[in-house]
Amino acid sequence: MATRGAVKVTSVREMTVGVLGGTGAQGRGLAIRWAKAGLKVVIGSRNAERAQQAADEIKEIAGGDVTGADNAGCASASDLVLAALPWEGHAETLKSLQAELAGKIVIDCVNPLGFDKKGPYALPVDEGSAAQQAEQILPDSRVTAAFHHVSAVTLADLTVGHVDLDVLVLGDDREATDVVRELADVIPGVRGIYGGRLRNAHQVEAFTANLIAINRRYKAHAGLRITDV
Amino acid sequence: MATRGAVKVTSVREMTVGVLGGTGAQGRGLAIRWAKAGLKVVIGSRNAERAQQAADEIKEIAGGDVTGADNAGCASASDLVLAALPWEGHAETLKSLQAELAGKIVIDCVNPLGFDKKGPYALPVDEGSAAQQAEQILPDSRVTAAFHHVSAVTLADLTVGHVDLDVLVLGDDREATDVVRELADVIPGVRGIYGGRLRNAHQVEAFTANLIAINRRYKAHAGLRITDV
Repeated sequence: MATRGAVKVTSVREMTVGVLGGTGAQGRGLAIRWAKAGLKVVIGSRNAERAQQAADEIKEIAGGDVTGADNAGCASASDLVLAALPWEGHAETLKSLQAELAGKIVIDCVNPLGFDKKGPYALPVDEGSAAQQAEQILPDSRVTAAFHHVSAVTLADLTVGHVDLDVLVLGDDREATDVVRELADVIPGVRGIYGGRLRNAHQVEAFTANLIAINRRYKAHAGLRITDV
Repeated sequence: MATRGAVKVTSVREMTVGVLGGTGAQGRGLAIRWAKAGLKVVIGSRNAERAQQAADEIKEIAGGDVTGADNAGCASASDLVLAALPWEGHAETLKSLQAELAGKIVIDCVNPLGFDKKGPYALPVDEGSAAQQAEQILPDSRVTAAFHHVSAVTLADLTVGHVDLDVLVLGDDREATDVVRELADVIPGVRGIYGGRLRNAHQVEAFTANLIAINRRYKAHAGLRITDV
């Protein structure tokens, strides 16, 4: 795997990608695309049996090498780990995985959102953002933030051969954000673009509320493209 | 001008657009494009003489009907008003214009940002966002938020015939956001897209910090496009 300061960084295609919360829509959609691209994928869930069921289903759809495990098993088996966890339980689950995630690249894609009769809105987060919360909980991991705006529906539909989306990758560790950008690039159509330091993650997470409002108004699965890059 | 609940809304092309802070780069760039599109534009500044100088300069570049006035004169003369004010002084200036802005569509494009050696970051705003601060200060106006991510350099350069950018327009007043979307649409290449309620303005303002980080990394004038819309 990638090592801070090492001369050669192994390609993301040789890495094992863990998806904590891989039974949820967002994690599952990304896992389908990564499996399809030939990456080794481990689905994590609190319940190992449900993780294995989801893994079997993803393998059926996308082929490739997909297995399931409980969250700790998923984290241990993986080189880089997507935390696609519900916001409720985000902190608690990450705390329980501190040892397994030490030294690894962790990608937080969690959007802390609330919904009321007026629609979606961003929840305040004491640490600033879900990603910064992860960074505080996991001081020995290399925490990045990315994949906030993906449409689970579009990702899961492999008849969509070109996913029209830029993935903003945030973090203070250049090598880690480069690896995560590569992980975005393996999805056809998607570009991984550096999107700033982790302290600027809140607005990227919160912007998902705007995309949901756009989806409702325009009956779309809206995503972002960055122009002039 | 547009009237809440009226049957017919006059086209934005028949309105006078005021630009408070029109001597600054962001306001000036937009004023150039609106003048070029044939809209009547009034540049506002604390100093009427400087406003008139800026207006003359814009007229030289873009042609059209451009005049200058102090901020109160600009607000009084206009049907819809862009507040392109520095964040420092935003609240104070709007408070001083409550009467002149009553009943009018106000567009807030202000990005409350800080900069340190690590680059740009979003400033916390007690009211949630600059736009919500404007809404609180101007209860008799129709406050919207838009034009946060425009590149002043690109706008001011009329050799750029196609501006590759979607403008997110936020607000709770459907008729007002429709008028502001039309105001975005008059700039060639630009689309005005509804971007959610005003309570979701913070992340749109704050996202400018990410775009600045992207600009620095990629040597670009980055903007946003919304896909699938």
